[in-house]
Amino acid sequence: MKTIAIGLLGYGTIGQGVIKLLQKNARLIEDRLGARLELAGVADPDLTRPRQVKVAKRLLTRDPFRLVRDPKIPLIVELVGDWPGVKELILAALRAKKSVVTANKALLAKHGAELFAEAEKQGVDIYYEASVAGGVPIIRVLREGLIANRIQAVYGIVNGTCNYLLTEMSQGRGDFQTILQQAQAKGYAEANPASDVEGHDASHKLALLIRLGFGVPIRLSQIYREGITALAPADFEAAAEFGFAIKLLAIAKLKDGRVEARVHPTLIPAGSLLADVGGVFNAVYVVGDFVGPTLYYGRGAGMDPTASAVVSDLMELARNYLRGEPGRRLPSGSFQDSRPQKLRVMPQPEVLTQYYLRMQVRDQPGVLSKISGQLAKENISISAVVQRGRGGKTAPIVMLTHTASEAAMEKALKRLNRLAVVQKPIQRIRIETAL
Amino acid sequence: MKTIAIGLLGYGTIGQGVIKLLQKNARLIEDRLGARLELAGVADPDLTRPRQVKVAKRLLTRDPFRLVRDPKIPLIVELVGDWPGVKELILAALRAKKSVVTANKALLAKHGAELFAEAEKQGVDIYYEASVAGGVPIIRVLREGLIANRIQAVYGIVNGTCNYLLTEMSQGRGDFQTILQQAQAKGYAEANPASDVEGHDASHKLALLIRLGFGVPIRLSQIYREGITALAPADFEAAAEFGFAIKLLAIAKLKDGRVEARVHPTLIPAGSLLADVGGVFNAVYVVGDFVGPTLYYGRGAGMDPTASAVVSDLMELARNYLRGEPGRRLPSGSFQDSRPQKLRVMPQPEVLTQYYLRMQVRDQPGVLSKISGQLAKENISISAVVQRGRGGKTAPIVMLTHTASEAAMEKALKRLNRLAVVQKPIQRIRIETAL
Repeated sequence: MKTIAIGLLGYGTIGQGVIKLLQKNARLIEDRLGARLELAGVADPDLTRPRQVKVAKRLLTRDPFRLVRDPKIPLIVELVGDWPGVKELILAALRAKKSVVTANKALLAKHGAELFAEAEKQGVDIYYEASVAGGVPIIRVLREGLIANRIQAVYGIVNGTCNYLLTEMSQGRGDFQTILQQAQAKGYAEANPASDVEGHDASHKLALLIRLGFGVPIRLSQIYREGITALAPADFEAAAEFGFAIKLLAIAKLKDGRVEARVHPTLIPAGSLLADVGGVFNAVYVVGDFVGPTLYYGRGAGMDPTASAVVSDLMELARNYLRGEPGRRLPSGSFQDSRPQKLRVMPQPEVLTQYYLRMQVRDQPGVLSKISGQLAKENISISAVVQRGRGGKTAPIVMLTHTASEAAMEKALKRLNRLAVVQKPIQRIRIETAL
Repeated sequence: MKTIAIGLLGYGTIGQGVIKLLQKNARLIEDRLGARLELAGVADPDLTRPRQVKVAKRLLTRDPFRLVRDPKIPLIVELVGDWPGVKELILAALRAKKSVVTANKALLAKHGAELFAEAEKQGVDIYYEASVAGGVPIIRVLREGLIANRIQAVYGIVNGTCNYLLTEMSQGRGDFQTILQQAQAKGYAEANPASDVEGHDASHKLALLIRLGFGVPIRLSQIYREGITALAPADFEAAAEFGFAIKLLAIAKLKDGRVEARVHPTLIPAGSLLADVGGVFNAVYVVGDFVGPTLYYGRGAGMDPTASAVVSDLMELARNYLRGEPGRRLPSGSFQDSRPQKLRVMPQPEVLTQYYLRMQVRDQPGVLSKISGQLAKENISISAVVQRGRGGKTAPIVMLTHTASEAAMEKALKRLNRLAVVQKPIQRIRIETAL
């Protein structure tokens, strides 16, 4: 039986997951692939830190370039993460005619074009299934499974940390800061949680999904981004009363030849499949013109699910290698590079949605009339409202609007903020009903 | 740009869907594939029947072998359905070194081994994404996306007709026969619904999922099968009271080196993702040892979703053809043919589950004691019971049991049927809680 040597860059949590999988499922991999995958080296700058998953000492090295330059290693797994030299490392691997598996969404979102072009030039592949939704094979689904479809919309719960925090908040477990601290103690949120809770990580993943689904290279700056830090327990209570759940969604929609691209907290119908995606799980809802709505669900992160995606990628690259071929002529996105799609990104002010608004107002007659009057000046009409006078000085008003543009809503919010009866800040959350 | 000729066998509903997709998304396909897919012929015994989707007359033929033997056609799509000659037709195509796309699960479940062996011999491929769960790319998921995993369980809602009927019943729309007739009038159920409602179709699909997931060739006779015709509105009401939904599930589970293989109505927790799969939709829940639980959801049938799967398959075969290669060395299942998995199918009497029992009993004291006494003799204990005396001669009892073997339950049911206080028939439905 043939043996294919694997060079692993990064002996962290995910790297250990990959080692564990290659050890535990070695026989299964042989049975499926008809060849052995053999770990030929593991590079990490810190080799002394204690690890859960052990590997023979002779395989360890501090120098990743030793593996990248080793002519006996045809496949490289990059799990180095957010390290400044990682782009050069991958470029070196590609130039040495090695195909690369990576889970590095931030890198791909920022430098994907350059890396994919180099892979194309060298006739090798970059596979990146683990970069979005962990073990859920959403990249394969978009690159192959749904490829006959014009993709019309993608709605993703793609950040497990945020989904865990929102699930906890929806169950009334406390305010954002309290729950974040508990999550950090449990290891579900990082010490510096900004990349997750501010929506950066979800934006990186959305950029990849947009490239695959719509054939549009997109800059991160073109994705509207709003995190979950401003959500309050009162929002979850009010949303539930109106029959909604709150999720951080990464949304891309084809509309009149343009693509909406946005990451923000979103009210979605309670009882919809995405609303039922709880805890650290991820799900991506994809609508194609022929297939209609589809959904893909599973663990979005963690040692084992990520290893599942990485090694499944490795096995596909190993098949190509066994065939003596550089690749399968699969374009790195889902379109031929020579055929870029002429879609533009829709500027956020032109995006149309319905809105949820929550504000604290003076508890006196006529307040609702004043508020609805200001909204009407921007042609925004109210579809539902709950106002609870509590006999105090102020009371909450929660309302849902009919569809309006972001530009109109921004203007309306400025108008409302000028009203003496309305306290700042006004909470504004977008609604998606077609789920 | 290169052009690849497609021969289409079958100008029925699905065939028309494929033609429509090839027409409507012609440019998209070029942009993604870097080549044109061109319909070179459409064969059907009946060319006069009016059709929704038209095709140039010169392409039409009554003789499928004309396309199968045409040396200019490298790819064949078989959408003939349940026709006695279809196996020979596919064999002829394979022998002429043509790769074949088919949606014919019944054929593959019965003659898959022979057909795949011929494809292997000829160095061509049979792709069959459309055969399970319509447009949802579950075959690719099991053959590639999750391939690094040892699959531990598959739970599928794979028959849209049954799921539609059960969804209607769960909403209190009437008894089985009434709802079936309404579904037939709407075209959601066939005039002869046996293949769907008796679970045959789901068994065919489960056979394919088991081959892919576990590497086990399985005969249909090894799959336990029970349809949905005996379900009553009272079952849906009682299940809901206990917090369960009722779905027809195709279940395969790895347990102590054996595979459970069964299709039957199943109580599953209300609020689980599978419980929320409504109407004609399909979903497959797959558990892998590394990826954990995952779910794939979408339309399981119909012209457009099926065309999505068929043409996505065609595009992959076209890529191989463009590369001048017979295939990708993907085994037809997900294991090398030389490495059959030594798993046996677990005989149904040894399967362990919890049970739901509903029976009509004489409304008199001591009945529950008699029933639980008979169950206890087979070591079956009750976990919950609802008994409603209505002051009439008889009253319903609904109970849930703890885990028991099928063999024990069969014996217990015989005991219960001998009790004078219990009316026949006793309704018995299996429960799956790990969803």
